[in-house]
Amino acid sequence: MRASTSLRVRLPVLVLVLEVVILTLFALFVTYDDNANAKFQNNQTNPMENSLYRDYPFFADVQVMIFVGFGCLLAFFRFYGFSGMVFNFLTATFAIQWAILIQGFFQFYSGGKIHLGVVNLLNAEFACAVVLISFGAVIGKTSPVQLLVMALLEVPFFAVTEWAVLKYIRINDAGGSILIHLFACYFGLGVTFVLYRPSLNKGHPNEITSYQSDILCVLGTLFLWVFWPSFNSALTLKGDDQHRAVLHTFIGLSSSTMTAFALSAVFNKRGKLTMADIQNVTLAGGVTVGASVDMMISPAAAYALGIMGCTACFFGYKYLTPFMAHKLKIQDQCGIHNLHGLTGLISSTAGICAILLATEETYGPSMYQIFSHRAPPLGDPKLLELQDLIPGLKPGLGRTAQIQALYQLAAIFSTIAASTVGGLITGFVMKLPFMASPSDEDCFDDELFFDMPSDFERSKDLKITIDNDEKEKVSSDTKS
Amino acid sequence: MRASTSLRVRLPVLVLVLEVVILTLFALFVTYDDNANAKFQNNQTNPMENSLYRDYPFFADVQVMIFVGFGCLLAFFRFYGFSGMVFNFLTATFAIQWAILIQGFFQFYSGGKIHLGVVNLLNAEFACAVVLISFGAVIGKTSPVQLLVMALLEVPFFAVTEWAVLKYIRINDAGGSILIHLFACYFGLGVTFVLYRPSLNKGHPNEITSYQSDILCVLGTLFLWVFWPSFNSALTLKGDDQHRAVLHTFIGLSSSTMTAFALSAVFNKRGKLTMADIQNVTLAGGVTVGASVDMMISPAAAYALGIMGCTACFFGYKYLTPFMAHKLKIQDQCGIHNLHGLTGLISSTAGICAILLATEETYGPSMYQIFSHRAPPLGDPKLLELQDLIPGLKPGLGRTAQIQALYQLAAIFSTIAASTVGGLITGFVMKLPFMASPSDEDCFDDELFFDMPSDFERSKDLKITIDNDEKEKVSSDTKS
Amino acid sequence: MRASTSLRVRLPVLVLVLEVVILTLFALFVTYDDNANAKFQNNQTNPMENSLYRDYPFFADVQVMIFVGFGCLLAFFRFYGFSGMVFNFLTATFAIQWAILIQGFFQFYSGGKIHLGVVNLLNAEFACAVVLISFGAVIGKTSPVQLLVMALLEVPFFAVTEWAVLKYIRINDAGGSILIHLFACYFGLGVTFVLYRPSLNKGHPNEITSYQSDILCVLGTLFLWVFWPSFNSALTLKGDDQHRAVLHTFIGLSSSTMTAFALSAVFNKRGKLTMADIQNVTLAGGVTVGASVDMMISPAAAYALGIMGCTACFFGYKYLTPFMAHKLKIQDQCGIHNLHGLTGLISSTAGICAILLATEETYGPSMYQIFSHRAPPLGDPKLLELQDLIPGLKPGLGRTAQIQALYQLAAIFSTIAASTVGGLITGFVMKLPFMASPSDEDCFDDELFFDMPSDFERSKDLKITIDNDEKEKVSSDTKS
Repeated sequence: MRASTSLRVRLPVLVLVLEVVILTLFALFVTYDDNANAKFQNNQTNPMENSLYRDYPFFADVQVMIFVGFGCLLAFFRFYGFSGMVFNFLTATFAIQWAILIQGFFQFYSGGKIHLGVVNLLNAEFACAVVLISFGAVIGKTSPVQLLVMALLEVPFFAVTEWAVLKYIRINDAGGSILIHLFACYFGLGVTFVLYRPSLNKGHPNEITSYQSDILCVLGTLFLWVFWPSFNSALTLKGDDQHRAVLHTFIGLSSSTMTAFALSAVFNKRGKLTMADIQNVTLAGGVTVGASVDMMISPAAAYALGIMGCTACFFGYKYLTPFMAHKLKIQDQCGIHNLHGLTGLISSTAGICAILLATEETYGPSMYQIFSHRAPPLGDPKLLELQDLIPGLKPGLGRTAQIQALYQLAAIFSTIAASTVGGLITGFVMKLPFMASPSDEDCFDDELFFDMPSDFERSKDLKITIDNDEKEKVSSDTKS
Repeated sequence: MRASTSLRVRLPVLVLVLEVVILTLFALFVTYDDNANAKFQNNQTNPMENSLYRDYPFFADVQVMIFVGFGCLLAFFRFYGFSGMVFNFLTATFAIQWAILIQGFFQFYSGGKIHLGVVNLLNAEFACAVVLISFGAVIGKTSPVQLLVMALLEVPFFAVTEWAVLKYIRINDAGGSILIHLFACYFGLGVTFVLYRPSLNKGHPNEITSYQSDILCVLGTLFLWVFWPSFNSALTLKGDDQHRAVLHTFIGLSSSTMTAFALSAVFNKRGKLTMADIQNVTLAGGVTVGASVDMMISPAAAYALGIMGCTACFFGYKYLTPFMAHKLKIQDQCGIHNLHGLTGLISSTAGICAILLATEETYGPSMYQIFSHRAPPLGDPKLLELQDLIPGLKPGLGRTAQIQALYQLAAIFSTIAASTVGGLITGFVMKLPFMASPSDEDCFDDELFFDMPSDFERSKDLKITIDNDEKEKVSSDTKS
Repeated sequence: MRASTSLRVRLPVLVLVLEVVILTLFALFVTYDDNANAKFQNNQTNPMENSLYRDYPFFADVQVMIFVGFGCLLAFFRFYGFSGMVFNFLTATFAIQWAILIQGFFQFYSGGKIHLGVVNLLNAEFACAVVLISFGAVIGKTSPVQLLVMALLEVPFFAVTEWAVLKYIRINDAGGSILIHLFACYFGLGVTFVLYRPSLNKGHPNEITSYQSDILCVLGTLFLWVFWPSFNSALTLKGDDQHRAVLHTFIGLSSSTMTAFALSAVFNKRGKLTMADIQNVTLAGGVTVGASVDMMISPAAAYALGIMGCTACFFGYKYLTPFMAHKLKIQDQCGIHNLHGLTGLISSTAGICAILLATEETYGPSMYQIFSHRAPPLGDPKLLELQDLIPGLKPGLGRTAQIQALYQLAAIFSTIAASTVGGLITGFVMKLPFMASPSDEDCFDDELFFDMPSDFERSKDLKITIDNDEKEKVSSDTKS
């Protein structure tokens, strides 16, 4: 007998509990930050200098990426479009609320209150992106209840790791290659390792696309592509740093896209293009420039990084994903290890190189702003000298480039370790009973969790009829 | 014999007349405002302080909502996707032009001229949103000629109501819960009451969705969701007020979305999710926070409002819409009474509570900016004192919180009254002959007004064949 | 025997060569501009005054137009959606990279380096729009290799023309009616003239749309419509000039859209609407206001221009496109001559009129900013006088309105001449062997260059079956 997958009790109960918890925490702990609080406005404040106008444009762009971009991208299966798009909507919405609170406690907490502004929402959207990337590893094989549980656990794991890395290891990672992409990737792999389904290694008849689902998915890719410069630059320093982040991301994506087309054609037996490559591999450059996105790496380096990331990503899809599924019991449905793991590793390495090569000659005194931990510590006479040139420069830790590079390395390893462990634990929780986990047979099928329009059933029937026809034809061909 | 629904003469004649009128009025009355007029630029003006840069980002976001968001949302019927999307395009385009003129006469008129800037366009887009919400009540049962006539009449009704309420009653309604959502809702209900079609109460075979139309509609929902913070904050005061409006809208939408998923599952007999809930009910929170969106209501209150609005909206769809159709002869096709009426009422009530609870302790002196009618009147010594703290504070009416609350109440009732009357009148005009109104049978069918691609006919034929098959099967099952 | 259309060697080799060339040029010649260079930041620079914040919002809007808007618009064929959307993606990505370099050498070159900032990307996107418009003339009949070759040649032709016109002829053309739309149109016509395929004049069975492809295409139209004000205003002067550009574009598009609906209905035999009109003709107004978009032409004139452009465009589609295909051997697949050529000519004429009518009375002293070539030359005492009123006014050429008008005329003719010649040459190169040009029979078919999902083949088979059924039916009807 199959376990029930009805959401009738499970989902509402879980949502109700979560809402009560969140509402209580909001009521007890969340207040406005200074930019959103009417009380702090007076003749000293200029409304147009409110932080809203610095953060909101980037927030809005990232919103489009999260809800429309990811939503369409994850709707690529022929019979799983509702689920891909709608579970993304639910998971994202919950993850952001939850991250506002959890990140709030770690990063925006003072005087017993979390201080809320658009900048918190922006940070929470990055935590949400982490969850959605991990979702990619288990899409099609999980219920909305499981996804909410995953978000429920992943957000705190992420927030703690982020806080520990930023506060104790102190790294440069403007585009989030380490904290977002590597964390999300290895967390997702941990989860999918625990949720391993041997029977799906032979492939599932629903693991196909349709003409319309492929187009929808490309549309998602395009929205992600278009707004990725906003994603990578949203949390950099303002001014020239953000300017470079936009340039590098655009350049990295451009070279990555060209490369993806070339590789797709050359490795296709009939010399045609494969939509899955266009939908995923083109984006690799956006991740690959991440860790050094605000540094003076030169436009040419961004171009080269895009090509390298794309190449690694492409071969990952071709060889590593099947290998991991069959040998390591890691079924990585969307290939997040290629698009976020391999590229994240390249990006982190490039970041380390950029740190080692950074000199005052190239950056001028603002080097100590970008690499803030290299700034002289409080009391050092060089600090005052620099503060003359760069007003508002904060005292740092006086690290050398080599030491900073070692800390980056430490951050990479600890992030991978923390996320893998977090993913494994979360996977076990998601495997508990009453999570409405779909049976192997019902995977990749909207019908399990949705009331479907009448043309859906028909289109599935038609597929089965045709599959049978083809089988018969093949068998009669064989006989004759 | 059916009345002709050919657009060949009607539509062009109507459009031509409208264009001549609009062009004449533009030529006679419309000039540039100071920010768009080259003549007023000199060594005192800083180009980067042009109002364009304050208004245009919000205008662009609302544009996406109006044309893409509404367009996709209204394309949810299987055989009415062209009409939903394209009539939305036509109606919106006309409504904005018309509103520029009509609102211009009431709000931007001086020295015999309407002064035009992006801020007028932004206001006109809100008038346009009013028309599109009302359109939701009668979608599928109206010709483009009728829709243009509706816009032609609704815009002036709305502009007069808006002007009277803002000038004489003077209210706080940053998100437009009263003036936009309640007006649009009761206007639409008035129209649909007059256009009542008894035979459609039994349901129409075309009132179904398809897999693709459901996905398109969710895409519309997502675009509306993503940019709703811009919608609700576009016309607030700049600075912290706008900042809070963004925060509250986002929080309200988030809790509303979670709640919609829970309710959808719990009230579905098989414990599945219903796409119509995801497409509509998730958005209820955006309306519900509207009237108090810029006030210091606390993030927790925004969260609670989202849950309340969503719950009311959900049960409205479940019980109220069928009741209204069968007992009150009000066929509310998209359920605008749930998504805009009930939520608008909750929002307005919450706005009144927020006004009653507002104190200088919470808001500081800027309370008199947000609740501008509570500011001391000209001549009051307290005004000068406050103007010291908040430069540029305008003299108000010296209203107390209680008095302002009564005015809000008056605004709610007069808006509902004005819109209902306006809707009824407009409905009668739309019912006149020569409006190309579709016959009952031809409702919800793109073919009536569009040249269709060949696969459309086939997909309809297929549906009929299958319906007949099923009927036969049922009847043979019954017999045996 | 058909020539091979496998991309397996051709595409990767071409991409590899291009990437090596671009990477080398980037490494040798491209550096950051002052706003993106860390070295130039010090206590004199305010991060929030970085040019990023002036250019990036417009850049992001244009990105959506290029990748999503054009992408969806070009996916209008039933069996060519993948190709339309994906070839647009590839071509656009390459064209921008290439334009960064080529335009860089002509416009942003100093001290042996191209100085890169977001403003270069914005300029490059305009060059890319030129390529995509030309692509419209040959869509369905070209391989991705041919499209890359077209971009490879068109970008330099465009960049040289742009540079020559701006440097030597010196014109006013804020919306790019001359340099973007006319250039792109006549270049595309030149290419398609050379690529003439007689057999396609009878029509190809795949030259049809489907329900979903039509909806996707309208979605593209809506994205272009919504962001067109950003496109037309992105490169104007900041302040009131940009403000007017937004207003005029919006107004022109509005009147154009209304007119398109009217004309579509009146010229349809059964009084219905034709989707192709909604998808294309509605946009004509955006082009038509282009050349005078930042001038004080009055809102009414923008409205009238929208109507005129739309009318010309509509009749162009109806009469001129078939005439050109049959009599002049110019197969203009998307009718770019109507949407960009005719409207561009009207726009340029209107621009000349606006120049002739411009007076200091209307514009104030800032007339010499907008019409910068009319400003007094260096040494003229009037220049100092004006610089008092408009600080930073640059010395001009002291041209009169009449002389400027003649230069505009010269620019129109030289642009058309240069683009036609460029298009013809490019067409010949694209006709060389080894370009994977599709056979006549394989035109408008995704299958030639893509691995297709299984439902694609079935949908094509179904079409053929039904076409045959219909033919049989017709022939049996004739017999009986």
